[in-house]
Amino acid sequence: MKITVIEQAGFCFGVKRAIQMAFAAAEEQAGQRGGGQVFSLGSLIHNPQVVEKLAEAGVGVVERLEQVKAEKGVLLVRSHGLHPSVLQQARQMGLRIIDATCPFVKKVQEDVVSLKRDGYQVVIIGDKDHPEIQAIKGDESQDILVAGRKDEVASLPLKKKIGVVAQTTQSFSNFQSIISELLGRVTEIKIFKTICEATTRRQRATLDLAGRVDLMIIVGGRNSANTNRLLEICQSVNTPSRLIEVAGEIQPEWLAGKEEVGVSAGASTPEWIIAPVVERLKNLSALRQ
Amino acid sequence: MKITVIEQAGFCFGVKRAIQMAFAAAEEQAGQRGGGQVFSLGSLIHNPQVVEKLAEAGVGVVERLEQVKAEKGVLLVRSHGLHPSVLQQARQMGLRIIDATCPFVKKVQEDVVSLKRDGYQVVIIGDKDHPEIQAIKGDESQDILVAGRKDEVASLPLKKKIGVVAQTTQSFSNFQSIISELLGRVTEIKIFKTICEATTRRQRATLDLAGRVDLMIIVGGRNSANTNRLLEICQSVNTPSRLIEVAGEIQPEWLAGKEEVGVSAGASTPEWIIAPVVERLKNLSALRQ
Repeated sequence: MKITVIEQAGFCFGVKRAIQMAFAAAEEQAGQRGGGQVFSLGSLIHNPQVVEKLAEAGVGVVERLEQVKAEKGVLLVRSHGLHPSVLQQARQMGLRIIDATCPFVKKVQEDVVSLKRDGYQVVIIGDKDHPEIQAIKGDESQDILVAGRKDEVASLPLKKKIGVVAQTTQSFSNFQSIISELLGRVTEIKIFKTICEATTRRQRATLDLAGRVDLMIIVGGRNSANTNRLLEICQSVNTPSRLIEVAGEIQPEWLAGKEEVGVSAGASTPEWIIAPVVERLKNLSALRQ
Repeated sequence: MKITVIEQAGFCFGVKRAIQMAFAAAEEQAGQRGGGQVFSLGSLIHNPQVVEKLAEAGVGVVERLEQVKAEKGVLLVRSHGLHPSVLQQARQMGLRIIDATCPFVKKVQEDVVSLKRDGYQVVIIGDKDHPEIQAIKGDESQDILVAGRKDEVASLPLKKKIGVVAQTTQSFSNFQSIISELLGRVTEIKIFKTICEATTRRQRATLDLAGRVDLMIIVGGRNSANTNRLLEICQSVNTPSRLIEVAGEIQPEWLAGKEEVGVSAGASTPEWIIAPVVERLKNLSALRQ
């Protein structure tokens, strides 16, 4: 059985950077007398195994700022970013802020500010509950619209002049089809194509591979949007596909009759989780012969 | 045999206005002692029968400004507009200019100027040889790109930041599919949807009707881009379709076995050409029974 792993699998630039900043911050605080707690608001990345490692190193997770007690705490802004109102609240609480927002996500935030300044009604193409979108939209903002699928466009209260950005991990084909729908309803539209290149390359490579193999294994957090999107991409070409978080989940019977298995992984999946997956596939293949 | 004419057939606002201005100008010049010739550069509209009527009223056609001899001539700018360099030349020749550019076409011209001023590389969705596009692009302009079909996008020397307008008579579906292609090649795109509403409504009504009838008769100039587009729209749903310029072209055998015939007409087709078409269809239908 042949096993092929896409070159683009695993940690993207923004995630790698955020993790490094997290470990560095934890180390720094641990080395200081009376150093406060390092924490993120929501898990730093959507991968339970990595979050566990971070917790061991001293990087905690809270769901709401109110849960933070230590005055000397350090708020690590995760790669998805945080809404300015939350950062403001954190500052008022006397927290130190380390900003690990992915630079590509930062660009989306800046594009939204510039579109609003220029009088455009802002539409974000993305999942309305995803933290990256929440960081832009905030809790109360009613003036920013979000569309995740093309059939959601018809019900948007659109004006005639709109500005569009995309969640960085959106698929290009979904982006295209939503833009096509939007074109029917407006007269002027300014679009920043903010899908990150790494995401596009990973999705394209995954699609190519899925078209050639008998089975696709997608490695990543079940709560990771970009990982789930890789699964959808494989399913779109009717390739049998499985999403797993760790190697141990692979069942030998999945491989029955398969000649080539492809492996892809989300942006929040570290190499130390992917390697054992490939190892286990090799072992199960060897056992079969 | 049932005969259905779409409500939106015939002269659009811009064409009606240009024709009225042409007749008024010819009348005014005729009434003046030594009044100069009224002419347009290229035929005023793409309909040979109307152009003939205009000639009778004293509105001539030249192909190049150099052909104009009369110093006191009046240049009637047709609804498609003229490039600023041509207007400049006309002024230098001492010609009086009457501007019958369609206000919707004027808007496209202004949008292009604003896009260039804001640093966008301009792409026009349209037919590169159409006078409306020539009026924007001029003879020498290399910095404005034109795409008429989605498969032309791949070879365009695109920058990363582009501004897009459409020829006013483009079909919305072609506009959509070209935008979709462009999205793949740029990072920022500002779009003015300059397809005129009357065109969209006419095309939609033609498509709807073509889907219900056994034969479509499209009335208009063979040299009219928007008329030819109506024919293409009917052919896209595999409805037998004929483009005619005048009623006399209808052959009785076209109607054999047809239960319902639809009639549509381009923006440059006057009512006095459409009415005899319907009359002839009625007569041929009566003869058949």
